[in-house]
Amino acid sequence: MRRGGVTTLMKNDLFLRACRREPVDRVPVWLMRQAGRYMREYRAVRRNLLFMELVKDVDRATEISLQPYRRFHMDAVILFSDILVPVQAMGLDVSIPEGGPKIENPVRSQNDVKNLRIPDPVAETRFVLDILKKLRQELRDEVPLIGFAGAPFTLASYMIEGGGSRNFSVIKAMLYGDPATLHALLGKTAETVSLYVQAQIEAGAEAIQLFDTWAGELSAAQYREFALPYTQRIFESIASLGVPRILFVNGCAALLEAMAESGADVLSVDWRVDLGEVRQRLDSGIAVQGNVDPCVLLSTREAIEGEVRNTILKGGGRGHILNLGHGILPLTPEENVAAFVEAAKNVRMIHMAGSEKAP
Amino acid sequence: MRRGGVTTLMKNDLFLRACRREPVDRVPVWLMRQAGRYMREYRAVRRNLLFMELVKDVDRATEISLQPYRRFHMDAVILFSDILVPVQAMGLDVSIPEGGPKIENPVRSQNDVKNLRIPDPVAETRFVLDILKKLRQELRDEVPLIGFAGAPFTLASYMIEGGGSRNFSVIKAMLYGDPATLHALLGKTAETVSLYVQAQIEAGAEAIQLFDTWAGELSAAQYREFALPYTQRIFESIASLGVPRILFVNGCAALLEAMAESGADVLSVDWRVDLGEVRQRLDSGIAVQGNVDPCVLLSTREAIEGEVRNTILKGGGRGHILNLGHGILPLTPEENVAAFVEAAKNVRMIHMAGSEKAP
Repeated sequence: MRRGGVTTLMKNDLFLRACRREPVDRVPVWLMRQAGRYMREYRAVRRNLLFMELVKDVDRATEISLQPYRRFHMDAVILFSDILVPVQAMGLDVSIPEGGPKIENPVRSQNDVKNLRIPDPVAETRFVLDILKKLRQELRDEVPLIGFAGAPFTLASYMIEGGGSRNFSVIKAMLYGDPATLHALLGKTAETVSLYVQAQIEAGAEAIQLFDTWAGELSAAQYREFALPYTQRIFESIASLGVPRILFVNGCAALLEAMAESGADVLSVDWRVDLGEVRQRLDSGIAVQGNVDPCVLLSTREAIEGEVRNTILKGGGRGHILNLGHGILPLTPEENVAAFVEAAKNVRMIHMAGSEKAP
Repeated sequence: MRRGGVTTLMKNDLFLRACRREPVDRVPVWLMRQAGRYMREYRAVRRNLLFMELVKDVDRATEISLQPYRRFHMDAVILFSDILVPVQAMGLDVSIPEGGPKIENPVRSQNDVKNLRIPDPVAETRFVLDILKKLRQELRDEVPLIGFAGAPFTLASYMIEGGGSRNFSVIKAMLYGDPATLHALLGKTAETVSLYVQAQIEAGAEAIQLFDTWAGELSAAQYREFALPYTQRIFESIASLGVPRILFVNGCAALLEAMAESGADVLSVDWRVDLGEVRQRLDSGIAVQGNVDPCVLLSTREAIEGEVRNTILKGGGRGHILNLGHGILPLTPEENVAAFVEAAKNVRMIHMAGSEKAP
């Protein structure tokens, strides 16, 4: 790749090769939420800082992003941040205490939507871009750097519910009873996120993952109306920039075919759907990421190794990035993360090429 | 049907006819959790009783079971109770405060499983049987009476987690790390539930619904190992008793084919999966129940009417029971329940026979 007029080679580009479905000699591995609470080093750096202060502290957030890579040697580093950063910049009062995010002034009406701004990412979330730049410097092209954002439906669920939700009853009541207001919010959010991920790529992100975590609460028809068009708009806005686009939805079993129309290069899927079935249902031109149940990492080394092998075999090798099916749980023991990454690295291409002798 | 040596005719047997896939002149309708908190009458009868006291109070529980039928005229009445009633009888310390169920002595080891009893339903949960008998007397064969129980995986999730759960991390850690203990618990629970539903039928239940609410957290392969065999065992134990068997799983999109092997006559499906697709994927010999999003009942009469019509059309008429895709939400306005039932009753068979003119 080119930087500052000099073409450099990435030392470990397995992740990017897998995103592009190029041949690899093993499946790359990283973990959603790999930087965070389960790590001693994270807790030491965080101290008593409020979470929204932490993600704005360029030095600390850079350090936290790098911690899991230095300890466990995943094949990619992801920006440490939160999907609600641009939501705060849109004008909402966001805090993220231990119990989960809170928004004091949720969006409930057309007027509330009108009052939201579409923030300039350079002026209003510069700290995110600075973290990415610093990460690129520190990484020296050792492994790729992933940027990310929340997808509009998922961001709207927080904005409308005023935080996390069990039944998503407030956004759903709007979806059924006042869809025009929801569409207005989704449109404004899509524009915000488009600018935000463009700026992330400009600042050095070498792949972008959109988290539409809660879109699995929708039926396929609702997904096509309230989620897909906005995800498409964002992915389209970065289509010419040449970085892989990854789409994650938790509970995606009924949505795969629709997700494949988003423009994503990679679909990141949860553990409820069989990876072999995912392969059958999707066009061969799309890569897949996932899909080990995060709860496996609460069990034993043997169970972890078994699930990793099984998942890599089902993924078929080429065009597969091993990951969890949802974010790592805070109570995960660190040694189990090590076991997960090691197990993944121990499955070599011989298993994938179909040339392995049956046991 | 025969009772006391006299053959009686049920005045409204639409629900039973739909379970058996017999012709109907309209689709029958009831709502999961139709008796409960959203109703003024319920709150008046409950007073300050603890929930586990309420379900053991035969007069009050009978009255509560009948309240929604008297107000809204659904096509079936379901026993008012809780799936944790037999769990308490197995020897666990169950309470159900407003925040959700709590079990003070959760099951974590083989020894904990050994200490559980398989209760005799007549001796230890007689109040449930008395409620059913009283309901049959009060109903005078106006509409069918549904009994229910939790399915073993879902009951085990409460028994192991010690209550409700966000990630099901404790039962999952056992599933991956100590599957033998989980299987032992599931086996004992299946035996308990088999006896329990047999006794319910003996006491007058004319259909049995098993709630495997949380089995949607499993992959299809896990469902086939940790849920399906136990559900099969229970349904097999009542196969000769001639009452329809209904299986509900929330988040069932990836599990439908496996659920169809359970022995269920009816699959009750959540709103995330399209009912037309459900019909395509299932053998025509199985009936379906569902699948309106409970959040629709938080919106407008127009939205409710639209969703009801749409769902009935997708269900294809025969072998379909209109219901929600999950339990009714406590904040649901009563008038929206009325609108739901009325809308369902207004869709007559002409819509189902395919003879309707296109609009």
